[in-house]
Amino acid sequence: MDSDNIKFVLVETSNGGNIGAAARAMKTMGLSQLALVSPCEFRTYECYSRAAGALDLLDNALVCQTLEEAVADCTQVIGTSARLRSLSWPQIEPHDFTELFGNAAEGAKIAVVFGRERSGLSNTELGLCSQLVVIPSVSDFSSLNVSAAVQVLAYEVRRAVLALASDSDDRKVVKKTVKPGDRPASHEDLERMYSHLESTMLDTGYLNPENPRMMMPRFRRLFNRASLNQSEVQLLRGLFASLEKMSRRIKSGS
Amino acid sequence: MDSDNIKFVLVETSNGGNIGAAARAMKTMGLSQLALVSPCEFRTYECYSRAAGALDLLDNALVCQTLEEAVADCTQVIGTSARLRSLSWPQIEPHDFTELFGNAAEGAKIAVVFGRERSGLSNTELGLCSQLVVIPSVSDFSSLNVSAAVQVLAYEVRRAVLALASDSDDRKVVKKTVKPGDRPASHEDLERMYSHLESTMLDTGYLNPENPRMMMPRFRRLFNRASLNQSEVQLLRGLFASLEKMSRRIKSGS
Repeated sequence: MDSDNIKFVLVETSNGGNIGAAARAMKTMGLSQLALVSPCEFRTYECYSRAAGALDLLDNALVCQTLEEAVADCTQVIGTSARLRSLSWPQIEPHDFTELFGNAAEGAKIAVVFGRERSGLSNTELGLCSQLVVIPSVSDFSSLNVSAAVQVLAYEVRRAVLALASDSDDRKVVKKTVKPGDRPASHEDLERMYSHLESTMLDTGYLNPENPRMMMPRFRRLFNRASLNQSEVQLLRGLFASLEKMSRRIKSGS
Repeated sequence: MDSDNIKFVLVETSNGGNIGAAARAMKTMGLSQLALVSPCEFRTYECYSRAAGALDLLDNALVCQTLEEAVADCTQVIGTSARLRSLSWPQIEPHDFTELFGNAAEGAKIAVVFGRERSGLSNTELGLCSQLVVIPSVSDFSSLNVSAAVQVLAYEVRRAVLALASDSDDRKVVKKTVKPGDRPASHEDLERMYSHLESTMLDTGYLNPENPRMMMPRFRRLFNRASLNQSEVQLLRGLFASLEKMSRRIKSGS
């Protein structure tokens, strides 16, 4: 699924600030196609201010009179809702975008439609939607701000896009490059470190060979759980070496 | 996982409107525990207006001077970031909350920490975090609005809570009884241990204050990754203390 084939449509948004915030939310998640159906206000100061660096989305936004115009080129129209509708619409969870995009035909264009701040989408508008995506809010306080809903769904769109294009450039960025010191410590490195720890603890008197109190097994469990890398093994051995040095200095009274 | 055991902490938020929007975002997802560390502005008109019906969260918000205070009662502190850090922190995706909560001990308290609008979290603040949750934004426009980030993570928290609640009966059978020493170390325990480690390393000369070589952040990362329990913190502190003890013993000539 290409992010450019996903359009977010805001219907009769009353607050320009919400439009700006929605543009910013979309851009952080790699979405660029914004359509506004009869916005009550649009290019206000608050709109630009909350858009931060997403002014290009505002400049290129498609502004139309009706939802039908906004979704005319789309093959699938998905309504959004923060609560379940009495009318039993086919409902999906935001997380189901992965499956939905995965099943979409090549070149499919998908619209995700957000209703008014106060009243959501009308039944006529819902009639244009093939499905409803429901954000699982609590029942007694279900009203997400429209730009917050845009952020959640933009995030889920991106998750789905990344999951489907598992070897896209974006994912390569997420993938860690491994520096030499970040390589996992070998079994040998670890064993040498544990010997070093043991001799240090014998030196300082912390480990009493007569009464070892499971100390070595407990340290092993702790450090094994951390999956140490090579540079961390060096860091720890440096600490042990400094403890040994100090204990010898104390013993020799210098 | 009980939603009341999950605290969202906003650090030095500069815009009161963002705090209000964050409160609303949390409430829609059933979260109630909001903490504010030195907010630049708080009870502004915009704050109340963007909170909509979430005024109770604002009224009950814990306001503190430092991040340490805000997370003192938490057993796990998770930082948030919209981008990868050069220091390879243990990183999880928002979706991994399900696994994280599922593995959490009974009664664990978890903090999710959000940084400043412009500069995020400082390295010192990141040092308090055991993990970093990264919202997968695009690399060239990664800056989510802080309240939008709160909405995404609150949504993922709720998804995880709902997912775990649905199979809670199965889990009850599996849940182990926890011995006192096996309880996760609190943030305070860990901080005392890090202070102890630091003073020991200064004592032995391993840590050079003129050239600290990122030693403390590297140790923090290592031990935070291991999710130490209380008895392991004691085990480590015993090692650090053994030098002091030895030096006293030798001085007293015993």
